[in-house]
Amino acid sequence: MEGFNCPRHTRATIGRLVSSSEQAARRVLERADELATFTIEPGRITRPLLTAALGDAQAKVREWMQAAGLEPREDALGNLAGRRGEAPMLIGSHLDTVADAGRYDGILGILIGLEVAEAVPDAALEVIAFADEDGLRFQSIYLGSRAFVGEPVDLAVRDRDDVTLGEALQGALGPPLHEAPVRGYLEVHIEQGPVLESEGLALGVVTAITGQSRFNLAFTGHAGHAGTTPMHLRRDAAAAAAEFVLAAERVASDQPGLVATVGQFEIPHGAVNVIPGRADVTLDLRHQDDAVRETAIEQLRTLTAEIGTRREVGVAWSTISHQRATACTPALVERVAEAVAATGTPVRRLPSGAGHDAVTMAGHTDVAMLFVRCAGGISHHPDEAVTEADVALAIDAAARFVCSI
Amino acid sequence: MEGFNCPRHTRATIGRLVSSSEQAARRVLERADELATFTIEPGRITRPLLTAALGDAQAKVREWMQAAGLEPREDALGNLAGRRGEAPMLIGSHLDTVADAGRYDGILGILIGLEVAEAVPDAALEVIAFADEDGLRFQSIYLGSRAFVGEPVDLAVRDRDDVTLGEALQGALGPPLHEAPVRGYLEVHIEQGPVLESEGLALGVVTAITGQSRFNLAFTGHAGHAGTTPMHLRRDAAAAAAEFVLAAERVASDQPGLVATVGQFEIPHGAVNVIPGRADVTLDLRHQDDAVRETAIEQLRTLTAEIGTRREVGVAWSTISHQRATACTPALVERVAEAVAATGTPVRRLPSGAGHDAVTMAGHTDVAMLFVRCAGGISHHPDEAVTEADVALAIDAAARFVCSI
Repeated sequence: MEGFNCPRHTRATIGRLVSSSEQAARRVLERADELATFTIEPGRITRPLLTAALGDAQAKVREWMQAAGLEPREDALGNLAGRRGEAPMLIGSHLDTVADAGRYDGILGILIGLEVAEAVPDAALEVIAFADEDGLRFQSIYLGSRAFVGEPVDLAVRDRDDVTLGEALQGALGPPLHEAPVRGYLEVHIEQGPVLESEGLALGVVTAITGQSRFNLAFTGHAGHAGTTPMHLRRDAAAAAAEFVLAAERVASDQPGLVATVGQFEIPHGAVNVIPGRADVTLDLRHQDDAVRETAIEQLRTLTAEIGTRREVGVAWSTISHQRATACTPALVERVAEAVAATGTPVRRLPSGAGHDAVTMAGHTDVAMLFVRCAGGISHHPDEAVTEADVALAIDAAARFVCSI
Repeated sequence: MEGFNCPRHTRATIGRLVSSSEQAARRVLERADELATFTIEPGRITRPLLTAALGDAQAKVREWMQAAGLEPREDALGNLAGRRGEAPMLIGSHLDTVADAGRYDGILGILIGLEVAEAVPDAALEVIAFADEDGLRFQSIYLGSRAFVGEPVDLAVRDRDDVTLGEALQGALGPPLHEAPVRGYLEVHIEQGPVLESEGLALGVVTAITGQSRFNLAFTGHAGHAGTTPMHLRRDAAAAAAEFVLAAERVASDQPGLVATVGQFEIPHGAVNVIPGRADVTLDLRHQDDAVRETAIEQLRTLTAEIGTRREVGVAWSTISHQRATACTPALVERVAEAVAATGTPVRRLPSGAGHDAVTMAGHTDVAMLFVRCAGGISHHPDEAVTEADVALAIDAAARFVCSI
């Protein structure tokens, strides 16, 4: 307990919550199992926006909020906020899922918020269950949190059955749920990556949500007969693209924290006996520092131009998207780090390579995130798993964090 | 004319044929244009086995054979052989086409055979028009020439309309057309590659039809989140496959005459934000020396195993096919070279990276091939083109070759 900074709570309170966190972790896992039964697809967890399945999950969370002494409010989209006290600390994440999802992505952060509310009953808190982060139904980005804070929402987007968001809402969106002032926003989330597991650590202190650039690259060479064209007369688009794949890997490996992924590689009308005249690849590049990401893009553009010139292969870049990085609030990051240290767990700072509702919330208040180790780094898959012991540590750290603000 | 070896013909005869070869070349191009009108698809040249389009083309060639003093015979498949004299030299190629074909692949060799028959009327000759080499209808290989020489033919193969070859034949295949003894087989063909054009040469003397190995390679790594998996924790199947593409290119470039092609590269279920867990590629490897090809395969297997071990990515090879090289008969190759030299054209020896009916014929008689430069190395495409001057040289060389045997 030494060094723990808790201006608003006694050491006795802290002692109580630590001893109860194992029991709380067990309840989190039970509740995650219960929420997993709300799905539009029997046998799989699939819970998109504005469906009966998500509505049932929201009703259950509303019950749990009330049991934890929180007063729930809900908007037309299905965002749910259970508040207690003035100028609360917000703790939340999302309740919707991808198709054939796991049971912890998003959900874990809400359930841990509820346990924190139970563990520190005198803290001013708001536990939030956002209605749409994975964006399955409308291919949307941060729709739930954007509606929550009152940012513009496009009601004309259509789902695959051609139903607009406006039609699905069956009415107006109404006023946003967000009520300032608040003390900040904490999101607890599974890591969705393998770093903590590979280092034997339960918790991670998130420094930023990385910025991200995505591109399509088209390599255009000259198709030719695989048997009759000597190597020195070839303009092989796929060989140029293969060099690009390795260049992207090398640039990212040379720069700490940078990740580069070529997730798609297609040779249109490719055949075993035809030299590829064209190859289309994608690039996804992420770093917590926008300048590093932008420098890497320039490096790769230069390398790719060299590859193209040397091979007489044309290269065309087209941008799919750019998103700037979102830094977590340094003062809150330090409080999360102190709370993690106080649980006796080593402090590991790392960026989040995936997007989270914290990105939206950062436009409206201070934000922090706490990562929980997940088995094999797996997410968006039924095999998502966390341990009870790690969840207990996360509840402990989150409660300590709330106490410290 | 010095050095021209013509045991059976006088220098006067040779002089006459050289002067007439330009006129003959003009007729070859006109006849190629005429044959191009026989197609199952208006506006494109598509002439598969046992169709009215191919039947009409065969009827026209039969007429031309008779006009050249050759006596045509035909089998049930549509192979056509116009013979004159005893123990003739065979000159032939195929009359069928791929879909949306050019007008010279195969056809040129038949038409030049007819001109040779006209140019050296006292030579014992058989001009052959094989009915199926491109194999469009039944995905067959050398079906026409195999039936011609009496090799086993599978009558149970089916076309895309589920019609068997046996049904399409409407009867028995009958006895083979091939009648020994013959003096050898010469096939004149467009190069289907860019070597002659890149070196500014009209004609090529074929040394062999390369052997060929084809494989599927499956690389199996671990799919992961593009944002949350650091570079050092990845097992990227596509990056391993990209290394393989470049290794294949390097091994082939380091070995004269070897060609290696990765014509297909697929990431099943690939997405811009997912690290590829699997990549499937093909390999096509050819060389005129089977030992060189086999050594290259072993080299690539070793390199690929190293890539897999270093990256913790599994690699599985499966063989699609192996075909041994077919050497042209050295004595005939020398005669072709002498005939080319006698036309005043530099002698360029090169292997054929594509398969030809000469492969089948090599099992039954001595074989030789003469390549004609084609624009851009293009074949199997409407843009196939040859020049009248090159065709004149080819007729000249082929006639000299026939005289020399």
